[in-house]
Amino acid sequence: MPIDQPVKLLWINPVTISSYDKPMADYIDNIRSSTTSVDVVSMKIENFNITNLEFRTLESAVELPIMQLARWASIQGYDGVCIGCFYDPGLEAAREISGPSMVVTAPCQSALAICSRLANRFSVIIGRDQWKDQMTGRITQYGYDRDLASFRQLGLSVDEMQKDPAHTADLIIEQAAAAITEDEAEVILLGCTVEFGFFQKVQDEVGVAVIDAIVACFKECEHAAKLKKAFEWSTSHVWGMQGPLDSEIASSNIFSGPPPIGNIIHVGP
Amino acid sequence: MPIDQPVKLLWINPVTISSYDKPMADYIDNIRSSTTSVDVVSMKIENFNITNLEFRTLESAVELPIMQLARWASIQGYDGVCIGCFYDPGLEAAREISGPSMVVTAPCQSALAICSRLANRFSVIIGRDQWKDQMTGRITQYGYDRDLASFRQLGLSVDEMQKDPAHTADLIIEQAAAAITEDEAEVILLGCTVEFGFFQKVQDEVGVAVIDAIVACFKECEHAAKLKKAFEWSTSHVWGMQGPLDSEIASSNIFSGPPPIGNIIHVGP
Amino acid sequence: MPIDQPVKLLWINPVTISSYDKPMADYIDNIRSSTTSVDVVSMKIENFNITNLEFRTLESAVELPIMQLARWASIQGYDGVCIGCFYDPGLEAAREISGPSMVVTAPCQSALAICSRLANRFSVIIGRDQWKDQMTGRITQYGYDRDLASFRQLGLSVDEMQKDPAHTADLIIEQAAAAITEDEAEVILLGCTVEFGFFQKVQDEVGVAVIDAIVACFKECEHAAKLKKAFEWSTSHVWGMQGPLDSEIASSNIFSGPPPIGNIIHVGP
Amino acid sequence: MPIDQPVKLLWINPVTISSYDKPMADYIDNIRSSTTSVDVVSMKIENFNITNLEFRTLESAVELPIMQLARWASIQGYDGVCIGCFYDPGLEAAREISGPSMVVTAPCQSALAICSRLANRFSVIIGRDQWKDQMTGRITQYGYDRDLASFRQLGLSVDEMQKDPAHTADLIIEQAAAAITEDEAEVILLGCTVEFGFFQKVQDEVGVAVIDAIVACFKECEHAAKLKKAFEWSTSHVWGMQGPLDSEIASSNIFSGPPPIGNIIHVGP
Amino acid sequence: MPIDQPVKLLWINPVTISSYDKPMADYIDNIRSSTTSVDVVSMKIENFNITNLEFRTLESAVELPIMQLARWASIQGYDGVCIGCFYDPGLEAAREISGPSMVVTAPCQSALAICSRLANRFSVIIGRDQWKDQMTGRITQYGYDRDLASFRQLGLSVDEMQKDPAHTADLIIEQAAAAITEDEAEVILLGCTVEFGFFQKVQDEVGVAVIDAIVACFKECEHAAKLKKAFEWSTSHVWGMQGPLDSEIASSNIFSGPPPIGNIIHVGP
Amino acid sequence: MPIDQPVKLLWINPVTISSYDKPMADYIDNIRSSTTSVDVVSMKIENFNITNLEFRTLESAVELPIMQLARWASIQGYDGVCIGCFYDPGLEAAREISGPSMVVTAPCQSALAICSRLANRFSVIIGRDQWKDQMTGRITQYGYDRDLASFRQLGLSVDEMQKDPAHTADLIIEQAAAAITEDEAEVILLGCTVEFGFFQKVQDEVGVAVIDAIVACFKECEHAAKLKKAFEWSTSHVWGMQGPLDSEIASSNIFSGPPPIGNIIHVGP
Repeated sequence: MPIDQPVKLLWINPVTISSYDKPMADYIDNIRSSTTSVDVVSMKIENFNITNLEFRTLESAVELPIMQLARWASIQGYDGVCIGCFYDPGLEAAREISGPSMVVTAPCQSALAICSRLANRFSVIIGRDQWKDQMTGRITQYGYDRDLASFRQLGLSVDEMQKDPAHTADLIIEQAAAAITEDEAEVILLGCTVEFGFFQKVQDEVGVAVIDAIVACFKECEHAAKLKKAFEWSTSHVWGMQGPLDSEIASSNIFSGPPPIGNIIHVGP
Repeated sequence: MPIDQPVKLLWINPVTISSYDKPMADYIDNIRSSTTSVDVVSMKIENFNITNLEFRTLESAVELPIMQLARWASIQGYDGVCIGCFYDPGLEAAREISGPSMVVTAPCQSALAICSRLANRFSVIIGRDQWKDQMTGRITQYGYDRDLASFRQLGLSVDEMQKDPAHTADLIIEQAAAAITEDEAEVILLGCTVEFGFFQKVQDEVGVAVIDAIVACFKECEHAAKLKKAFEWSTSHVWGMQGPLDSEIASSNIFSGPPPIGNIIHVGP
Repeated sequence: MPIDQPVKLLWINPVTISSYDKPMADYIDNIRSSTTSVDVVSMKIENFNITNLEFRTLESAVELPIMQLARWASIQGYDGVCIGCFYDPGLEAAREISGPSMVVTAPCQSALAICSRLANRFSVIIGRDQWKDQMTGRITQYGYDRDLASFRQLGLSVDEMQKDPAHTADLIIEQAAAAITEDEAEVILLGCTVEFGFFQKVQDEVGVAVIDAIVACFKECEHAAKLKKAFEWSTSHVWGMQGPLDSEIASSNIFSGPPPIGNIIHVGP
Repeated sequence: MPIDQPVKLLWINPVTISSYDKPMADYIDNIRSSTTSVDVVSMKIENFNITNLEFRTLESAVELPIMQLARWASIQGYDGVCIGCFYDPGLEAAREISGPSMVVTAPCQSALAICSRLANRFSVIIGRDQWKDQMTGRITQYGYDRDLASFRQLGLSVDEMQKDPAHTADLIIEQAAAAITEDEAEVILLGCTVEFGFFQKVQDEVGVAVIDAIVACFKECEHAAKLKKAFEWSTSHVWGMQGPLDSEIASSNIFSGPPPIGNIIHVGP
Repeated sequence: MPIDQPVKLLWINPVTISSYDKPMADYIDNIRSSTTSVDVVSMKIENFNITNLEFRTLESAVELPIMQLARWASIQGYDGVCIGCFYDPGLEAAREISGPSMVVTAPCQSALAICSRLANRFSVIIGRDQWKDQMTGRITQYGYDRDLASFRQLGLSVDEMQKDPAHTADLIIEQAAAAITEDEAEVILLGCTVEFGFFQKVQDEVGVAVIDAIVACFKECEHAAKLKKAFEWSTSHVWGMQGPLDSEIASSNIFSGPPPIGNIIHVGP
Repeated sequence: MPIDQPVKLLWINPVTISSYDKPMADYIDNIRSSTTSVDVVSMKIENFNITNLEFRTLESAVELPIMQLARWASIQGYDGVCIGCFYDPGLEAAREISGPSMVVTAPCQSALAICSRLANRFSVIIGRDQWKDQMTGRITQYGYDRDLASFRQLGLSVDEMQKDPAHTADLIIEQAAAAITEDEAEVILLGCTVEFGFFQKVQDEVGVAVIDAIVACFKECEHAAKLKKAFEWSTSHVWGMQGPLDSEIASSNIFSGPPPIGNIIHVGP
């Protein structure tokens, strides 16, 4: 039962700009297991220009492309797919269509699983208060609403988060510290994949684990993919997890085109 | 404060086949207020062939087109949009993008509102047990999970429901009667818009209200649209209901094409 | 299937003073469908003097009279009864006794149904903080407790609300604005039927829908009554909705007297 | 701090027939502390004939009389009032009006408190399945819904329960045994005060505690009354527990008549 | 059916110091029924020095000794055991091992039962905010989380609570008053057995019932023990309440030593 | 940021018999990462003979030894501790005492985290129905109670599970298949660490992932330990996660003896 088998993962940046691809690929390259190979992709969707998913409107534009990528990945033999947005867009659908050959993870569910091993209560550092409603929905669905100490906003849109990293780091430290002191959070979650590059500095300052959305999603996916290869613990495909028949998939034409990949960067073996 | 103002509604058949359009338009023509004008549309999405939304996979293909129609409808001056599928696909997103000028309804939420005025506990007649998980999610999100007596399946796919209406009616009567007798349901919900044409026969047989998904969604929408015109009770557009800025919408190009309408039938004035 | 049939409704002011009857009848006259006929009644209960239902004590005095009116209305051929108090007193009992011939609505449940079509989260503007406990019970029972952003009190008793309408309006605007800004409410509910006459001014000021308790209860009742006439969607009468047998009703003598009507005003055809 | 002070309690049979008064008074006489004095009363309400409260309709007729008795009792110096129906009718209102001078208990809440000291999960033996909805509401409100193993019906109306006690005992034993074996109940609750006289025989047969509704309500009231006298642990009278002002009570005339007592039996010192 | 039978109770101070034994025994002597005999014990556990249970770490050291005492008490013929810590440590296990011959109570569950008869909402006065997480777990498990208005900390460790009683009393009064005024608590719970001696002074100041942890636990135990003797309402011993077989107990050797009693004080007959 | 660092784990068999140590060590040796070193220990507790933890009584005997081992492990430099029982005994306390230098996992929480990535609903295969109550408590605490399809019992005590492995396998297959077919489970959890050696055969038969309790607990611990070393994501030590001061630990003498190890087997480097 060899456990240390290599796995092959797909990281989806569910936006149509490629500017995050290189820094995120480098980031992932630093955290992957040595035998893990990763493709980091951003999207090409008609002439759309999607730079973030702050609104449900924008999310709707990437739901189908995420599905198409998940389906494509399962056919290409990827072991796992990471959906790189803390709203976990399309997670259930991607699991349904990729069926028993693959695993799919997303940041919110991943970060909560990590958090549950380390603490009772957590706060989530978000960009803007407008995100709360949808994120509360996810946290509630996952069963962790009783453990939510607070949301704390930075007052930044997603597009602003990497503009002045030192400033963003200061804001995160300020809000994380307040979440611990005032809201009695025991662990901090960074509620956006674009809040990358900050967690270590923040946790040095605030003294409790600060869960990075990219690291959480990626490492849980890698871990789940290894479990899948070693123990055949794959995505379920019965009852509510059942996807359409191959004939239904074929006749729908949903997956007849090329995968909606705009840019691809490979890291690892 | 004139209440009986005419309203203009859009009924979306979120599939790419037009075969339901005529019977549903006729159905709606029979239940609309005399001053309500309605456009019943099915979709055109690339070369997709979507005949039902039984799986999350298929739903994902229509999320964006539903959004595009909701946005288009709000610009065209529709007062309300009906999303014609009991999974209520894209409901929150459509409300977000259509903002304060319109109302949006969908069958599951509508049927629950009607039910809550008539009874404590309800059962939902579904096509296949595979639907339960996702539908339970909606019912729980809407706050009615404590009142769910049971799901009862017909053993029919969506595509089979109108093939042999007499047979389908018999199956619904059988399951509705069992839901009342064995599961102690007090009202019956028909959990699919394609279960249309049956409710009156069923309720004559089983003796309690049987809520039709089309009638529920349409009449709640017409009602909400009239309230909107009379009292300016429109969709909220703050906090979790806030949509993207016009500039963000424009730069995204999501709504730059024509609306994804495949077929359109008008009823009413 | 004619939908625009006229309906006949009973609005119960569950107090023994008649001073609200005329302004409320005028108010309702302005919001009814043109074919809807309405009787607005206040009560005559022994020598009781009930001007409001702020306390459970006072509510208890009107529970039976509400039932007697509901029963009387169902026999007189009313299509619907509105119970005009935001605590929704006697709602379940009135539905039970009026059985399958009528519908019954009340403001809290009605306002929540309207709100659920427009927003995720709401605040309720109440007279005094003492109301919270009982109202929280209703909101929880209806399944909307997760969506309650806050209660905000005016610091007014019911009897004071119409004393100085301009002052009351100012207070409501102040609290509604704070609810939106500080508590992140997306829609405002006016938590008392005596807060009538304010909603339009308030929503002009605060920019989101402000749901008036009278309008909500009346329009949901009118709507439900039309659905009942058109589709036979009546109050359930099985299991937990079952009322006593006619023989039990007769032998109880509960309904043997005249209806406890103190004053009656008719509006409409 | 003398604990063994005598207390004076009022047991309300919330019906207008006196036939249960003597057997219940005898029953209570056997279970009271030696220093406890008790008045067992049934009601006189106009010309009403209320033999049971199986329906909300019938309950509504006794809500006000229960209040009037609670108010009267608090003025007369009773230490506690027992509301003798497992639906706990008027419990919150009676606490509100009797304020800080008295305690009020009712069977459902009392039985749950006793049960929570003995077991994790319980079943309730009811007369008819129609009772479930309202009783579930109470159990949920009290926070014990997670612990409800099942309801089990006898197929008897309240009026039939004491007609053939041996037959009723057999039915209870049968259903209690099934609740333990099939539903995994650990304790049994008798869900009606008219199921009196059976619990000891039943628990001898089924081997777990069987909580009698009268004994539970009475002994919890006596206990609470002793705590009140010894420690001044009285009903709260602030926030949601606040009642109307004396002036409001006086002007309402609700309590101006004699107490609605039809029959009274005294037991104890 | 003699109710006033004497009962014999064991109060466990789950610490290894004896300094609280005498004041607590005197305290209990003042609140017991005249026929109740009580043994107040603290523990002897190897060379351990446990002065409080503020941390789960310390609690773990007394779980087994509590069990051994509960088992010993059931064999010695005690009618009830009180576990004297507001975390209710070992409550379920003690009930399991003492089986159908005894009752076991603990302060948190006891105080909530008393509170539920007096009010809707309560606050808990704790020593330090660190206690909240575990206490919230208990309150949630018991079904009362919806009713929790707030925790309010004194800023004192358990060991400091009786150092300067006048100062502690002032702190409790301050926090209790704030809980009522700001958090809308209707009753106050003292969330530690070492907060003894204060409740009467505090409730004189704040005007609502203040539930003392020792009194609550002891009086509920005495009451439950009397119910057990009178009605055979004993701890359940089936399903989740079932303990090991006698043979399993014997072979485990867990109970082969003497009971872990360090000090014992008898009060009463 | 080297991720593939070696980690050193402690597997606790929380029983006093050593017979499972060798087979479990071999089992773990087959599933560990190549760089992971593991010590598998069973316990020595006075003269106790604890072969399983089926009852809370038996669990109480190992709570303190688990703590002592967790504390010892954190001092010895272990990166993680696995508590090898599906009731997750002592999990929170072990996290508290081992503080920010270590991670601790247990089977139930671990299996649920794995399951949440693969499916919506799960069933748990248990030995005896008596386990349900306590296990339901854990699943509810972890937030997964909505997703529990069913428990299914084998009718075996823990001690019988490895007596006739072929028979046990047959029983598990039978119950797992029934859970999928009748209860609509999408993944199966084996609810006891002594159900080891079966999962692969069972999942081959039933066609969905079958989560082994040992593998789940061990692999989640190894994964969490690697995250800890790479990212400093350690157990929180503030608020509800805070443990006693070193001085309190020292003065308590709880940890002054040798670790309660009865047998130790090392696997890995």
